[in-house]
Amino acid sequence: MRKVVLGLGISLDGYIARPNGGVDFLFMPKDYSMAPFFRTIDTAIMGRKTLDVALKMGGGSYSDSSLATYVFSRSKPPGKRNGLVFVNQSPTAFIRELRKRPGKNIWLMGGGELARDFLKADLVDEIYLGIVPVLLGRGIPLFPSPFPQREFKLLANKTFSRGMITLKYKRVRRGRRR
Amino acid sequence: MRKVVLGLGISLDGYIARPNGGVDFLFMPKDYSMAPFFRTIDTAIMGRKTLDVALKMGGGSYSDSSLATYVFSRSKPPGKRNGLVFVNQSPTAFIRELRKRPGKNIWLMGGGELARDFLKADLVDEIYLGIVPVLLGRGIPLFPSPFPQREFKLLANKTFSRGMITLKYKRVRRGRRR
Repeated sequence: MRKVVLGLGISLDGYIARPNGGVDFLFMPKDYSMAPFFRTIDTAIMGRKTLDVALKMGGGSYSDSSLATYVFSRSKPPGKRNGLVFVNQSPTAFIRELRKRPGKNIWLMGGGELARDFLKADLVDEIYLGIVPVLLGRGIPLFPSPFPQREFKLLANKTFSRGMITLKYKRVRRGRRR
Repeated sequence: MRKVVLGLGISLDGYIARPNGGVDFLFMPKDYSMAPFFRTIDTAIMGRKTLDVALKMGGGSYSDSSLATYVFSRSKPPGKRNGLVFVNQSPTAFIRELRKRPGKNIWLMGGGELARDFLKADLVDEIYLGIVPVLLGRGIPLFPSPFPQREFKLLANKTFSRGMITLKYKRVRRGRRR
C-alpha cells in the first residue's frame, strides 16, 4: 500500500521554519542526498500556508513537474491550477481516494497544521526527519499540539557532515483491530 | 571549566513530560547506561515545578546524596532544606559562583522553563538528549519559545534498543567576542 511519509528538515527544537516561513537555517550536507527518498515517492501534499511561503520564496510560482502536487485549502476552490491540485476534502477521504490508484509513496511535506490533521486522523505511516544542530528559539513547529499519542518504530538513524542527522520512523499500530 | 549540561529524555515531539508531569513514556533500553554521564557530573539543577513533580512521584521526598542538588525558585525562601539547596539568584550569577569552586560538570535536569532561562542567558554548554520513538501530541516542552537562536555542534549520535537514540551537542559560540 502507498505510504504517507511526513518528511521534513527541522531545527533541534522542532521547527520547520522561522516565524516568517524562512528556512535559511536548513542546509544540505555534501555527503547527503535526497535522491533515494525522491525515488520512493511520486506525490506531494502540502498545506495552503506552506504553499504561500513556497510561492513567496519562489518569486510567485511553484510547481514540480516530477511530482503530483496537492494543496489542502479550506479557502481556495478545489481543482487543478498552475501545476497544482487544490483539495478541500478531509485528509482521510483524500488519502483513501489516492490509495485506490497505483503509485509510489506520498510525501507529506508540511506544514505543521496539516501534519497535525494527518496525525489526528492517524494517516502518517512514516516519518523522515533531518535535524540540524541549531536551536531557533521560536518558529513554526512540526508537531503543534494537540493530537493523540502515536507510537513509532525507529527504522534508521544516520549522521552526516556538519552535524545533520536523519531519522526514519514507521508507525506502529498495535492492537488496532482489537 | 565546569560545563552546564542540559540532559533529558524526551519524546520525538520534544516533550519532557505529559501535561501532568508524567514520564511513563520514557524507558531505559537494556543496552544503555546513564553511568558514564553520571561520572561526569557532581551537581544537579532543577526548577521548582520539576521538584514538585519529583516530590509527587517520589511520595513526598526527593534527595540524591550523590549530587549537590539546587532548586531554582522565585516563591520559596533560599537556603538548604531536606538535602536540597533552594536558590533565587539569576542563573548567570549562580553559575558564576558555582564555577569559582572546583568540581565536575553541572547537570541542568529541567524543566523547560528553567532550560529557557539558561538558554536566554547562554549558559548551556552541552545538550544530551535521549529521544524515544513516540509522539505524545501534548505535554511539557523541553524548549519552550522564545529564546535567542543558539548554534550547536553534534558530538555523538547513538542508537539503542527499542529505538531510543542519544544525541550529544556542544554549544558553538562563534564570533562571541566581536
